[in-house]
Amino acid sequence: MAMAWPTDFPGLGTGAARLAQRIEAMSGGRIRIRVFGAGELVPAYEVFDAVSRGTVDIGHSAAYYWRSKLPEAQWFGAVPFGMSVHEVNAWLYHGGGLELWQETYQPHNIVPFPAGNTGVQMGGFFKNEINSLEDFRGLRMRIPGLGGEVFRRIGGSPANLPGGELFTALQTGAIDAVEWVGPYNDLAFGLHRAARFYYYPGWQEPAASLEALINAEAWASLPDDLKAIVRAATEVTNQDMLCEYMARNPAALKRLIEEHNIQVRPFPEPVLEALHQAADEVVAELAANSELSGRIHRSYREFQQLLAPYMEISEDAYAKVRKSLSA
Amino acid sequence: MAMAWPTDFPGLGTGAARLAQRIEAMSGGRIRIRVFGAGELVPAYEVFDAVSRGTVDIGHSAAYYWRSKLPEAQWFGAVPFGMSVHEVNAWLYHGGGLELWQETYQPHNIVPFPAGNTGVQMGGFFKNEINSLEDFRGLRMRIPGLGGEVFRRIGGSPANLPGGELFTALQTGAIDAVEWVGPYNDLAFGLHRAARFYYYPGWQEPAASLEALINAEAWASLPDDLKAIVRAATEVTNQDMLCEYMARNPAALKRLIEEHNIQVRPFPEPVLEALHQAADEVVAELAANSELSGRIHRSYREFQQLLAPYMEISEDAYAKVRKSLSA
Repeated sequence: MAMAWPTDFPGLGTGAARLAQRIEAMSGGRIRIRVFGAGELVPAYEVFDAVSRGTVDIGHSAAYYWRSKLPEAQWFGAVPFGMSVHEVNAWLYHGGGLELWQETYQPHNIVPFPAGNTGVQMGGFFKNEINSLEDFRGLRMRIPGLGGEVFRRIGGSPANLPGGELFTALQTGAIDAVEWVGPYNDLAFGLHRAARFYYYPGWQEPAASLEALINAEAWASLPDDLKAIVRAATEVTNQDMLCEYMARNPAALKRLIEEHNIQVRPFPEPVLEALHQAADEVVAELAANSELSGRIHRSYREFQQLLAPYMEISEDAYAKVRKSLSA
Repeated sequence: MAMAWPTDFPGLGTGAARLAQRIEAMSGGRIRIRVFGAGELVPAYEVFDAVSRGTVDIGHSAAYYWRSKLPEAQWFGAVPFGMSVHEVNAWLYHGGGLELWQETYQPHNIVPFPAGNTGVQMGGFFKNEINSLEDFRGLRMRIPGLGGEVFRRIGGSPANLPGGELFTALQTGAIDAVEWVGPYNDLAFGLHRAARFYYYPGWQEPAASLEALINAEAWASLPDDLKAIVRAATEVTNQDMLCEYMARNPAALKRLIEEHNIQVRPFPEPVLEALHQAADEVVAELAANSELSGRIHRSYREFQQLLAPYMEISEDAYAKVRKSLSA
């Protein structure tokens, strides 16, 4: 298994390592998986190709990394102002999303499964305060995928750097801001030692799905019981990694605020409005990219629209009521 | 496997049936499970005892059903005004919750695992409008567990009836209101044909966890690979059932409103305030019930309190921003 992150990286790396352990344990050792971190076997951004060619049997990565070779993959990584993690998992497992994902990767000889989620991310660490849209003009920020393109449309200068380079780039001033993941990961990278302002919400990745990529021939060679085991292991990992983030982010946030004096701020409304408008354009352009992309977009949008009135009276209403009562 | 619901019951029954199928598929048939609905082998409310005695090897049920024999079980079913499903899963899998659950059931010869969640439920179907706290006085409502006790404290008259009896009881006027699950299940039971007002949010069950109960000797007899398979199957089921509810509730809600002219209403604020206050009392009394109960309560409360500031700037902030931007 080749990963797009270091093996000991909290959440992404540790979660993927547990995926491998689960498959071994459930198969009684009939499948053994050697886990390689980013760069150990192949670089982070070549995991897709390595699985496609069969250099490795399995990969763990994020779909938006394949943007340049496979634009449609972006629907399955993170969509700016798109579905939350409850919604996107329901779409993937019970709304036709996973079937579309597998159709998208099929010509590349890869069988994908959702295998982890960070939940909504943070908006990022910024060296300077953001008070208006003007403060985004010319800002150099590490922000990949569709989010990066949206950021570019409102005047920013997006960059995509692998995780390992973020701290130095931010500290030296090569970039002004970084959106990486959330408190659990950002604290581990020490981003707070290079920037003081921590913005929310993570409009760019409201539910970042991670993926297990399986080489199609390796998959076809498995008997039915091992197929069931591998699939189940990805599903367990999908839930477990989210739970790890939910359980570890709060304490990391507390430390960032109390020990490191980080200023946590909401993005100003006019900034969010401009980002939202630009996101609509970017998403519409992606949908127009191909017949398949249009089909995925319709499925995604219709599901999100169907869910909206229900979320409003269920999870969202409960969160609101509980907050107002405990105030 | 004995279930506390009919085998074909949407979500609860169909989800539990898939749990059995997953174990069979992953084990290559080394474990075969015969699935019995409520009343087929043992009545719904005797599943716990049947697993405890070893009459069946596995059960699928909800922890709050065991309230009278094991008050501590209630922490693992649903806690009024307690944690949401994101929060409770993080507590169970990464916050020590599952270990406490297993400690609680251990003297009863049962190994429990979370195995499904409905997400936040609806507040219930009511024959008449609720405009003030007065309208709750003397109201006869099907509402089990801690929620029922809270309802009693504010003047209501709670009843616990198995699912199969709800429609008739509501239609004949034996009861005035029913909280069962949410749109997907409530529509299937036809509750809308007996009552017109549908209230939210489901303060009584903000995240109802379902459980797989495994007889301790049956569990101990499994080799490690089958233990790993059974555990993973419960974890997959835990996520999958939630996704099924998230995917099916919205369309059911739409039908209730558009085809059946159901009136969807928020509970009035003074009613929620009174319920919240009564819930604090009921929860404190449960915590004082035993040393173990106090320990579970501290773990539950500390986890919820740690998560609150993070949820506010993450999932909840995103839901709020997205709603205001799309308005």
